[in-house]
Amino acid sequence: MKALVVLSGGMDSSTALRWAIERWSLDQVSSITFNYGSKHNARENESAKLVCERLGVRNVLINLPFINQYFKSDLLNSGGQIPEGHYAEESMKRTVVPYRNAIMLSIAAGYATSIGAKELVLGNHAGDHAIYPDCRLEFTKPFEQALLNGDWNPVSIIRPFESLSKADIVKVGTALNVPYLLTWSCYKGGDIHCGRCGTCVERAQSFAEVGVIDPVPYEDKEFFKSVLAPETHS
Amino acid sequence: MKALVVLSGGMDSSTALRWAIERWSLDQVSSITFNYGSKHNARENESAKLVCERLGVRNVLINLPFINQYFKSDLLNSGGQIPEGHYAEESMKRTVVPYRNAIMLSIAAGYATSIGAKELVLGNHAGDHAIYPDCRLEFTKPFEQALLNGDWNPVSIIRPFESLSKADIVKVGTALNVPYLLTWSCYKGGDIHCGRCGTCVERAQSFAEVGVIDPVPYEDKEFFKSVLAPETHS
Repeated sequence: MKALVVLSGGMDSSTALRWAIERWSLDQVSSITFNYGSKHNARENESAKLVCERLGVRNVLINLPFINQYFKSDLLNSGGQIPEGHYAEESMKRTVVPYRNAIMLSIAAGYATSIGAKELVLGNHAGDHAIYPDCRLEFTKPFEQALLNGDWNPVSIIRPFESLSKADIVKVGTALNVPYLLTWSCYKGGDIHCGRCGTCVERAQSFAEVGVIDPVPYEDKEFFKSVLAPETHS
Repeated sequence: MKALVVLSGGMDSSTALRWAIERWSLDQVSSITFNYGSKHNARENESAKLVCERLGVRNVLINLPFINQYFKSDLLNSGGQIPEGHYAEESMKRTVVPYRNAIMLSIAAGYATSIGAKELVLGNHAGDHAIYPDCRLEFTKPFEQALLNGDWNPVSIIRPFESLSKADIVKVGTALNVPYLLTWSCYKGGDIHCGRCGTCVERAQSFAEVGVIDPVPYEDKEFFKSVLAPETHS
């Protein structure tokens, strides 16, 4: 096994999975998905499973029930309501799950080592948000150094999209036939994408920016047009 | 809440817990314990619970069943036999659980943040083993930097015993009346301490070195005398 992809079931990581299969080969790629009790986890997990079935990739689901049980965040089932509007809003801070990425990446690294994979592939992109401290370079740089020094068979993290915007990812994924209809982004985790939460707005804006039709239906499919997108319009 | 102690139920972390209560106060200290499916986890977890009951400290047990299910290590129930002799032996490498500390510390940091604790207290000491890459400074230094940068309410790691030997810890703990009878160290996790595995040998040598009687019974209570202790006798 060459690579383990951390797959949320969203559009970025699904594109990263498809990219990894192209970069190595189907039998050299595996995937790992987490259920940490967020409001949209059940939908995300289902999407991760469907995407893997469609692409023919092994997927392991790791349940972390203690996060919903003991951690504080509005992203969790045990937390308050998900705020609406764009990510940049101060209120989105309440959706931070403390050290979520450190937890998921550590587990993914341990599993990667156990299956002999040397590369851990993430779908992070240039537009990932300053609101999430564990998406920023100040976190990821020392964290990756720790991973490199933390095992006799260390794991490297690869972010193929780190210099791309989310709109660029739509371009790449469309070229690679990523089954976007099967992916899930909405933070509210309802029956269909709400169209109003931070992730929905961002997703809809990215597809619109490159003129590709997003195959998923939205409850409010016009809302994204009324929200200023800080990265692309300011 | 001021501090969260990572408590394995062994003698080092139990001493660290007692130290934290002395440093802050009983109502400002909480503890977290992990069950990751090692052969001695059931015994360790039981000890952690007993120590906390004795000291009157809250203890949260985090189950990580996926480690035993998916990870490879002889320390795990799913792995091979635990080697005998001293830690320094090459064979002890097989007892490394990949990125175990990264996983446990990330979760502990997230929980600490959620209960408002700013300090994460670990029982690590100067004799911790080069055989475990994630106990070495090359791992811990960048990892702690990542934690400091990884949340809006970051957590600092404190190692009160980092310049002490395990024998020094026995001295500190004896002065603080740590209930060592309730602690568990043996990697084999039998009914009583085996006296032959790496942790048993090291524990027995530490008590012997400072002339304190270890209250726990050993199956083979003389074996430690036949094993060269690299830190203290070479």
